[in-house]
Amino acid sequence: MPRFFKKVMKKSGLAPGTLLYTNEKRMEKAKITIIDYDEKDLQEKEAKAVEECFPFKAGPTVTWINVDGLHEIDMIEKLGVQFDIHPLVLEDILNTGQRPKYEDYENYIFVVLKMLSYDEEKHEIKAEQVSIIIGPNFVISFQEVEGDVFDPIRDRIRNSKGRIRKMGADYLAYALLDAIVDNYFTVLEKLGERIEDMEEELVTNPDPETLQTIHNLKRETIFLRKSVWPLREVISGLERRESTLIKETTGIYLRDLYDHTIQVIDSVETFRDLISGMLDIYLSSISNKMNSVMKVLTIIATIFIPLTFIAGIYGMNFEYIPELKLRYGYFMVWGVMLGCVAGMVLYFRSKKWF
Amino acid sequence: MPRFFKKVMKKSGLAPGTLLYTNEKRMEKAKITIIDYDEKDLQEKEAKAVEECFPFKAGPTVTWINVDGLHEIDMIEKLGVQFDIHPLVLEDILNTGQRPKYEDYENYIFVVLKMLSYDEEKHEIKAEQVSIIIGPNFVISFQEVEGDVFDPIRDRIRNSKGRIRKMGADYLAYALLDAIVDNYFTVLEKLGERIEDMEEELVTNPDPETLQTIHNLKRETIFLRKSVWPLREVISGLERRESTLIKETTGIYLRDLYDHTIQVIDSVETFRDLISGMLDIYLSSISNKMNSVMKVLTIIATIFIPLTFIAGIYGMNFEYIPELKLRYGYFMVWGVMLGCVAGMVLYFRSKKWF
Amino acid sequence: MPRFFKKVMKKSGLAPGTLLYTNEKRMEKAKITIIDYDEKDLQEKEAKAVEECFPFKAGPTVTWINVDGLHEIDMIEKLGVQFDIHPLVLEDILNTGQRPKYEDYENYIFVVLKMLSYDEEKHEIKAEQVSIIIGPNFVISFQEVEGDVFDPIRDRIRNSKGRIRKMGADYLAYALLDAIVDNYFTVLEKLGERIEDMEEELVTNPDPETLQTIHNLKRETIFLRKSVWPLREVISGLERRESTLIKETTGIYLRDLYDHTIQVIDSVETFRDLISGMLDIYLSSISNKMNSVMKVLTIIATIFIPLTFIAGIYGMNFEYIPELKLRYGYFMVWGVMLGCVAGMVLYFRSKKWF
Amino acid sequence: MPRFFKKVMKKSGLAPGTLLYTNEKRMEKAKITIIDYDEKDLQEKEAKAVEECFPFKAGPTVTWINVDGLHEIDMIEKLGVQFDIHPLVLEDILNTGQRPKYEDYENYIFVVLKMLSYDEEKHEIKAEQVSIIIGPNFVISFQEVEGDVFDPIRDRIRNSKGRIRKMGADYLAYALLDAIVDNYFTVLEKLGERIEDMEEELVTNPDPETLQTIHNLKRETIFLRKSVWPLREVISGLERRESTLIKETTGIYLRDLYDHTIQVIDSVETFRDLISGMLDIYLSSISNKMNSVMKVLTIIATIFIPLTFIAGIYGMNFEYIPELKLRYGYFMVWGVMLGCVAGMVLYFRSKKWF
Amino acid sequence: MPRFFKKVMKKSGLAPGTLLYTNEKRMEKAKITIIDYDEKDLQEKEAKAVEECFPFKAGPTVTWINVDGLHEIDMIEKLGVQFDIHPLVLEDILNTGQRPKYEDYENYIFVVLKMLSYDEEKHEIKAEQVSIIIGPNFVISFQEVEGDVFDPIRDRIRNSKGRIRKMGADYLAYALLDAIVDNYFTVLEKLGERIEDMEEELVTNPDPETLQTIHNLKRETIFLRKSVWPLREVISGLERRESTLIKETTGIYLRDLYDHTIQVIDSVETFRDLISGMLDIYLSSISNKMNSVMKVLTIIATIFIPLTFIAGIYGMNFEYIPELKLRYGYFMVWGVMLGCVAGMVLYFRSKKWF
Repeated sequence: MPRFFKKVMKKSGLAPGTLLYTNEKRMEKAKITIIDYDEKDLQEKEAKAVEECFPFKAGPTVTWINVDGLHEIDMIEKLGVQFDIHPLVLEDILNTGQRPKYEDYENYIFVVLKMLSYDEEKHEIKAEQVSIIIGPNFVISFQEVEGDVFDPIRDRIRNSKGRIRKMGADYLAYALLDAIVDNYFTVLEKLGERIEDMEEELVTNPDPETLQTIHNLKRETIFLRKSVWPLREVISGLERRESTLIKETTGIYLRDLYDHTIQVIDSVETFRDLISGMLDIYLSSISNKMNSVMKVLTIIATIFIPLTFIAGIYGMNFEYIPELKLRYGYFMVWGVMLGCVAGMVLYFRSKKWF
Repeated sequence: MPRFFKKVMKKSGLAPGTLLYTNEKRMEKAKITIIDYDEKDLQEKEAKAVEECFPFKAGPTVTWINVDGLHEIDMIEKLGVQFDIHPLVLEDILNTGQRPKYEDYENYIFVVLKMLSYDEEKHEIKAEQVSIIIGPNFVISFQEVEGDVFDPIRDRIRNSKGRIRKMGADYLAYALLDAIVDNYFTVLEKLGERIEDMEEELVTNPDPETLQTIHNLKRETIFLRKSVWPLREVISGLERRESTLIKETTGIYLRDLYDHTIQVIDSVETFRDLISGMLDIYLSSISNKMNSVMKVLTIIATIFIPLTFIAGIYGMNFEYIPELKLRYGYFMVWGVMLGCVAGMVLYFRSKKWF
Repeated sequence: MPRFFKKVMKKSGLAPGTLLYTNEKRMEKAKITIIDYDEKDLQEKEAKAVEECFPFKAGPTVTWINVDGLHEIDMIEKLGVQFDIHPLVLEDILNTGQRPKYEDYENYIFVVLKMLSYDEEKHEIKAEQVSIIIGPNFVISFQEVEGDVFDPIRDRIRNSKGRIRKMGADYLAYALLDAIVDNYFTVLEKLGERIEDMEEELVTNPDPETLQTIHNLKRETIFLRKSVWPLREVISGLERRESTLIKETTGIYLRDLYDHTIQVIDSVETFRDLISGMLDIYLSSISNKMNSVMKVLTIIATIFIPLTFIAGIYGMNFEYIPELKLRYGYFMVWGVMLGCVAGMVLYFRSKKWF
Repeated sequence: MPRFFKKVMKKSGLAPGTLLYTNEKRMEKAKITIIDYDEKDLQEKEAKAVEECFPFKAGPTVTWINVDGLHEIDMIEKLGVQFDIHPLVLEDILNTGQRPKYEDYENYIFVVLKMLSYDEEKHEIKAEQVSIIIGPNFVISFQEVEGDVFDPIRDRIRNSKGRIRKMGADYLAYALLDAIVDNYFTVLEKLGERIEDMEEELVTNPDPETLQTIHNLKRETIFLRKSVWPLREVISGLERRESTLIKETTGIYLRDLYDHTIQVIDSVETFRDLISGMLDIYLSSISNKMNSVMKVLTIIATIFIPLTFIAGIYGMNFEYIPELKLRYGYFMVWGVMLGCVAGMVLYFRSKKWF
Repeated sequence: MPRFFKKVMKKSGLAPGTLLYTNEKRMEKAKITIIDYDEKDLQEKEAKAVEECFPFKAGPTVTWINVDGLHEIDMIEKLGVQFDIHPLVLEDILNTGQRPKYEDYENYIFVVLKMLSYDEEKHEIKAEQVSIIIGPNFVISFQEVEGDVFDPIRDRIRNSKGRIRKMGADYLAYALLDAIVDNYFTVLEKLGERIEDMEEELVTNPDPETLQTIHNLKRETIFLRKSVWPLREVISGLERRESTLIKETTGIYLRDLYDHTIQVIDSVETFRDLISGMLDIYLSSISNKMNSVMKVLTIIATIFIPLTFIAGIYGMNFEYIPELKLRYGYFMVWGVMLGCVAGMVLYFRSKKWF
């Protein structure tokens, strides 16, 4: 639950633009990797100090600076000053409770969104904030922890595979966004599998734990929804290409990315519908179960209570009870009792109780 | 359930534009049929190799190339290169988890939508992805399996029936879309029949299986909705005729098609309303049933428990119980008991319990 | 239920523009009546053959051609050809599953909507499709069966009452639409009365049949809603007077008609709210009833079960039970029992059970 | 319930513009009061005949003609003819089932809305239709019955208080509308108090009557909502000042009025949310109550049924039951029984049943 | 509950623009503080009389006049006259039931919004109205009580920290709004913590009080929502910078503030979803609990009722009951009884009841 709002509130009272990392420190030391390339050459290195990034700002080649770990505020501030990034943007990069958004500054575009992963043990979706700054010939990406989602892109750059080496910083940014959105499908699949399992369980053997699981699924879906809905506007903002930083050739790829985003949102909405349907079914099957418990009780009680009464009658100690003297009284009573049972059984059958 | 999202996710991590068929192979060998016609002449053949299609690209006649089976990626790539189709479009054709959409490229229009059929045995709606590329004088359609929905169109072309032979590729594309949308009505009818059956069953004899069926109907409706909602935008996109590939004379037919789409969506929404109403009714009738079970139990218990108590009283072995000595004690007890029963019955009648 | 979609689907597979009447034949022979008038003269006749209508097409006077019965396709086709009506329009006139709509062709306007009536016996709303073609000086109306909704308009024309004789075909069309929409209020009133009855019943004596009635009311409201919602767009389309066929003087009347349509929709939405509220109340009162049944059972059982136990104790046959020998043992047991009852009653009172 | 739609339907079949008062006659004789004023002078009189109003039409001073009672159709028709009011407007004034609306005719504006009052005895909101015609220098207001909502305005005019005497007919109309909307807050307050009472009752002592009250509150809210929602458009229509009849200086007051309208709508929506929440709580507390009833029954039955069985065992008349001969058999049985009870009590405690 | 509407209604019947403070007097004496600054100088004082503010109206420096306490109407009226504030604005400042809004007057902007705080004892959100008037070089803020939310801003001004001293009145107004919105996160956090606690409790030990708490949380969320939703329009109105009073450099800060507002709204919506989910879970777990109570009752009753019947049989006093004479009759009966129990247990196990 805390992940729904916790991260945003520490800022309260501070001046706008004050830099403060709002999440727990997730890795030991921040790590900066630089990949600089054009169609022919490629240079790749891990920066020991933030100053190593500065020369790449104005070069003719495309530079991708990736920062893992946001707790070294000094470093990020230096980077911000050097690359002319607005203090409010830096604040947003560090404040990891951001809603996905897209902001167009004159000489760069700022995109912030969530990278999701599924924790198989806790059955929980984990979110990490990724911020991307798209400049004319550089892309700076910020992650909270080191991850492997961007590895295929690094490989593609290294191998000159695909069109990535021929295109500019905007295409690189698209590739990063695409990798993140593609990753959502993996999370969707995991969630979908659990829903599928759940549905089976609902039919075969619903129990109180089922309820707990439905509730958890619902919460995960609410969380997922909160992370992906704003993405629609983000990507469509980029796609409209109001900034000159996005070239026309990249537009078509962004449209494709937009379609993927819509597909993700569509699936989340479908999950919501399915889960809300499951809760209805669960409630109905509890009612059905209680109904069948009630029937057993009613059948047993309805059959035996009158019989017990009859037995009670002839257990009375009145001095004069004529039936008690009859030779076959006992057997006649048994007859009456069996008659009662038969009547009851017929009655229950007519009600289709069994 | 898997059909709600399974197909999309295998792509994750690959470069955009990488071709990969994301569904199981549904037929042995892909099949290409070519129909080339103008008002006077008609040529029809099954292509043995994809290269046979190439000459038709620039001809003055209208050419319809239909591809059944999407697993032969080489073939589709060749077709794509020859007809100048963007790699992202080819990727979308092969990735069968697409949301229905409409994309306007300069020299062709790309439309992707779902062809639906109803599996009577599993009571499930099956969806197949159909992609249509509309060029200036050709239409290329891609299906996952061979089907017979397009047969009436083939017949109309062959018999020069209707206005199809007099009009261009845009009208042919309209005819294909119209055939697919018309087909939705068949699926709606099947679903509608089941809902009708269900409603009858609800009234006459609701049981736990009814719940399962309602749940299935709901899921099918969610699935149907997901397939048809985006169609609205697709058809209205075509109808606005922003592309010069759609002629004015076809516009009026597309408006008609748009009306049909709205009718389909309308029916799906009505189904949703009806099904959600059915669940409420089901829950209410379970409650009603439990209520009537409870009443039987309560009537029996309430009548006999006090009587058994009275019998118990006179079954006690106290040395001195004055009533036991009475000559007509036994009959007087019977009288008291019958009095109790009569009182109870009157009480229940006043409560309208039977 | 079938009325929700049945009528539309027979068309599947046919070429667009193929004429086919999709409903059962509702009257023996189609009937054409012609009323031709201007401010001074009036001519009224029943046409034996469709050809009798043709001369009225280009006359300076206003002509109203009313066709009752849609199964004589030949006749309608001839009329269509003579009055230059697009085949798709004719198809829509015959296909009685249309959604209310408004289409502006260059030299005529096509309006299709539903005429509703309330079947008092089956408690069902019946719908009949009415199509209206508005030309420069003629109006053609198509009904499935002969009805009396248009009779007051005929009378007004005959008696030169109101402004109808002074105005053109557009005002005549308005008068027809107004008569149909006014008729909706009658259906609303009937439905409203049933809802009112229902509400009373809910409070005084809810039973399982109540549930059935609520369900039926809900379905009728869904049906009504489906018929009237699209009307909003239809009338507002006419009111915007994009076509030159609608004169400015008629605009003010169409605005009034639009208001009536909004009132109808408003009432339908209110009915939906009321009915959904009724279902909640019904469910709550079932729960309340079950609660009161449970209380009776619990009170009886809770009072007598312990007493029966005490009686059971002294019905045991142990050789040595000291109490049995006591002179007033029997009366002391009665005392204990009455004490138990008093305790129970106090407990129940404290719980406010009676 | 009838108030939801009854009033509108009597018109069906009549020509548009036919005058007919659709509500019951609410007062003996219609009453016309005229207030004519400018910054300096004030003339106030009750008109004996409608003709007395006519001279005020073209005067330079502001004239407010207020008509109480709508059943004297002749009078209203005469007024309409004299002041050039469209027959459809007159029809709307008389037809008291109008939805609040705003219509801009060339030389006057027509506004119709609801005046609400709360009937404390029936706990019902009562609505009366008020129509206002705003001319260049006159305002005509129509009410169904004489009321006192406009009295403070009369006082303000008489006392030259506020800016009302300095401004034109548009400001007078604003003042009337403002008085009506301000009055809504009184109704809201009454409804709000009942909701507050209800909430307290829900917590302390919910019973079946509570349900009835919640249902009534819900219906009143539906009714209120239907009356106030369209007002938003009405006031914003006036505020946009598309007509030259509304001067700029009045615009700022209308914006304020618009804010009040939004506040009313906001409160109605909040009421809806609160009431729907109350129903959920009510249902939950019924369930809670049934649960506690069930627990009492179960505890009693579960404790005594086994004990009664044990007593039954030793009440059997077998010739050879060894325990019966035991000297302390009876006390041992008591021991066993008390052991059972202790076990049960521990079990229930472990389940937290009491 | 009264806070949902109480404050607005006292005005009814008064002339628009009449000043009246609609809330209870919350502090002894109104307090005016003035802070006047430019980049170099700073003057700060508490005004003893309202007239001390007047000189600051036209100065070149930025002046912030903060008024705590709204019950001294005279003072506020004087301030209004001096600073040319429209009477309707003054009325809105005093009428503390305003919906957050933004109004653009020619030479100043009027913003009204809610300052929220969380009352930890009553578990209630408290709201106070804050009105802000933004002039060319002054900002006047009105609060109902003295608070400490603005203290950090005062400190920043005093210490020349941040960019506040370098920028104009628009930035100061932004800073005030930012402080208020930042404060919302604190309230959100408190509410979020309670929701989290609730969720835990729901799983471990739901009881009737839980229901009460869920209901309260729901009401607080409805209240919160009503306070923050309109803020979206307010801030976006400011951000669009239609007034020349807002400079471009401040625009970027307002966009940031807008993002925060969206985040707050987002969280409120998430809370609504979570709370509504909790109610479903609560209802389901009550049902589950009742089910388990029913099972215990059914198991006990179903096992012992038949046994008691058997015991009853052999307690009858018939002269001839053959079994009673059997040497091992008693033990055989025990055998039969244990057989019954074993059968029942197997049956319950097959039903998975324990």
